[in-house]
Amino acid sequence: MATAYIIRRAVFSAAHRLHSEQLSDEQNRELYGKCDNPYGHGHNYTLEVTVQGEINPTTGMIINLADLKAIIEQQLLKHMDHRHLNHEVPFLKDVVPTTENLAVACWQQLQAAMPAGLLYEVKIYETENNYAVYRGE
Amino acid sequence: MATAYIIRRAVFSAAHRLHSEQLSDEQNRELYGKCDNPYGHGHNYTLEVTVQGEINPTTGMIINLADLKAIIEQQLLKHMDHRHLNHEVPFLKDVVPTTENLAVACWQQLQAAMPAGLLYEVKIYETENNYAVYRGE
Amino acid sequence: MATAYIIRRAVFSAAHRLHSEQLSDEQNRELYGKCDNPYGHGHNYTLEVTVQGEINPTTGMIINLADLKAIIEQQLLKHMDHRHLNHEVPFLKDVVPTTENLAVACWQQLQAAMPAGLLYEVKIYETENNYAVYRGE
Amino acid sequence: MATAYIIRRAVFSAAHRLHSEQLSDEQNRELYGKCDNPYGHGHNYTLEVTVQGEINPTTGMIINLADLKAIIEQQLLKHMDHRHLNHEVPFLKDVVPTTENLAVACWQQLQAAMPAGLLYEVKIYETENNYAVYRGE
Amino acid sequence: MATAYIIRRAVFSAAHRLHSEQLSDEQNRELYGKCDNPYGHGHNYTLEVTVQGEINPTTGMIINLADLKAIIEQQLLKHMDHRHLNHEVPFLKDVVPTTENLAVACWQQLQAAMPAGLLYEVKIYETENNYAVYRGE
Amino acid sequence: MATAYIIRRAVFSAAHRLHSEQLSDEQNRELYGKCDNPYGHGHNYTLEVTVQGEINPTTGMIINLADLKAIIEQQLLKHMDHRHLNHEVPFLKDVVPTTENLAVACWQQLQAAMPAGLLYEVKIYETENNYAVYRGE
Repeated sequence: MATAYIIRRAVFSAAHRLHSEQLSDEQNRELYGKCDNPYGHGHNYTLEVTVQGEINPTTGMIINLADLKAIIEQQLLKHMDHRHLNHEVPFLKDVVPTTENLAVACWQQLQAAMPAGLLYEVKIYETENNYAVYRGE
Repeated sequence: MATAYIIRRAVFSAAHRLHSEQLSDEQNRELYGKCDNPYGHGHNYTLEVTVQGEINPTTGMIINLADLKAIIEQQLLKHMDHRHLNHEVPFLKDVVPTTENLAVACWQQLQAAMPAGLLYEVKIYETENNYAVYRGE
Repeated sequence: MATAYIIRRAVFSAAHRLHSEQLSDEQNRELYGKCDNPYGHGHNYTLEVTVQGEINPTTGMIINLADLKAIIEQQLLKHMDHRHLNHEVPFLKDVVPTTENLAVACWQQLQAAMPAGLLYEVKIYETENNYAVYRGE
Repeated sequence: MATAYIIRRAVFSAAHRLHSEQLSDEQNRELYGKCDNPYGHGHNYTLEVTVQGEINPTTGMIINLADLKAIIEQQLLKHMDHRHLNHEVPFLKDVVPTTENLAVACWQQLQAAMPAGLLYEVKIYETENNYAVYRGE
Repeated sequence: MATAYIIRRAVFSAAHRLHSEQLSDEQNRELYGKCDNPYGHGHNYTLEVTVQGEINPTTGMIINLADLKAIIEQQLLKHMDHRHLNHEVPFLKDVVPTTENLAVACWQQLQAAMPAGLLYEVKIYETENNYAVYRGE
Repeated sequence: MATAYIIRRAVFSAAHRLHSEQLSDEQNRELYGKCDNPYGHGHNYTLEVTVQGEINPTTGMIINLADLKAIIEQQLLKHMDHRHLNHEVPFLKDVVPTTENLAVACWQQLQAAMPAGLLYEVKIYETENNYAVYRGE
């Protein structure tokens, strides 16, 4: 039996501000630069969720992509799309919304809704020039 | 002498909210849907600025791309990149920041800094699925 | 009042075969090459629909993108997505589904559902290497 | 001596239908939805083949990309490009052509034509929103 | 009868240096900056060639894409791909290889091999951030 | 504490020629084909540099992307952008500039300027059809 990976891409648009409550205003400005701008800015985020597992010989699937799409919609997009990540997303409360932290938070949200051992990787692009990857390590 | 077009792409990240002061809250919600969300959301905007003109036979250029890049930086990116378009951009005050309106406003900003007759088109992508074009008409 | 353009992208997957009933089998093979293969092949088609018009000063819109998306869905995607273009699409009956002909047929389908004068251009990509444009001329 | 990875991309267009002979018509429809449509649909598939190995200090290559291109052409594109994957591809007979299964089948076809230990990964995109990866596990 | 546009994309890799014989070394350096670097640098150029015409009702084509591909290959790629544009391309002799000038030169090369009135536009991308367009004006 | 990956993309344009001093002219021509063309050709190279590490709970970062960007600029782009890789880059002297060798050389340049254990992967695209990856193995 073959073990493979299936990846689903999703896109959402959100506002955010990089600002750590554990740092002074000056430290924030120095560390995050224009990303600390008080009114916030935003991105078209691109998510890629990788599921790893055996291919079912009857269906030819690791997981039904329709199910994976629904989990991503329910666990992530419903909460994050067209939202301000600092103010409206319960699972991002107390998290500085860097790309790294978003990858971890998205992983945890997906993990909670998937059979154990299936989720392999969350990749999230903030811009065409930077993205983060988390594999539950 | 040949007349051609030269295009420069630029990218910026900004937050915005679609909300018209001339409409009631209910009308805004109905018209703009999730784009009216009060905290705002955001995008990686992609601009394409087209300049039309004769190619200088000595330089092989319509306009020096370094100059065009500087004009885009000075007139647009400096004001819009990593900003909230509803709250921080003087030339967008009293403008609902739809993609169409952004195209017109960017055109006007560029026009003010360029020799007459050079600017041909402003294209602005809000997402991979929608964009607007303005040609000064 | 400003006249601008707003563009909506949509994607669909379909099978097709290039084969003209007005040509012999040999002529078809010579003209269309591997695109005439009897079982058909397929593409991820990308559509870009351009609407031209005045920007409404209250809403900042030429047309509500949600409405444009619904028209594209109703007039095109519902009939073409995950279909075989030679066998299942009423408005493509008796049409060789070249990219040029698809652009014209999509234009006619959209035109029938939109206020006069709004539709400006239909662009349809068959692959990353070729696409067609139709403007109702 | 350095061990690295070299990746070659290739594109092909094909039709397919998701339908398992081990399931009833109703089960097929429920499982695969519109992908089970009898006439089939199609995609522009994008392949990425990764070869892993030591870089030859004389040539600077792991494998000559011209050779890798020829192997991909001979083992995959010649059989799959502009074909219907359910009806015309010997090595896909009795395989439901899901993206996962295509990744495995492509791996096996490539493996048969390459020196042992070189092939590292086959990635295949069905659309811009989903792709599969197989590493021979 | 419908008039439409069909576009073919092609890619080639070439070296070039921006340096005008009509300017002093100092003027060249000031005008072209790092693009004047004596050893030259290079790009993956992307061409898009647009043909405009009536769609043949029998074939569904404006021009056979196989023919257009062959013309692009014969008139452009054969001379420019994997070449140094300043030293090896007869039709670029005495031309500063700016993107604007390349668009004009490619137009002329294509025009010489195509029936009158078919060629509509040549677009050439030098990088993801700048490209030029020429329409024979 | 979570271990994740952060990736920074950068683009540069350079000329190169594939030619090994350890091979005869005829062997070079046979091995590298048109890539051995004496005047050289060029590419828009795309780099992706991956850093692996623990996410700092105060900042939400593995490494400040502004710092990573500066290291890439200082160690790579300053030397390679708008250069001829065979003639002007000290750390590529005596290296055949294949994509594999460029990946290794870029890794070594970055490694020399980064805290131990952070650098995870260098990916470098020569064209849209081929790229190489090096992980320090």
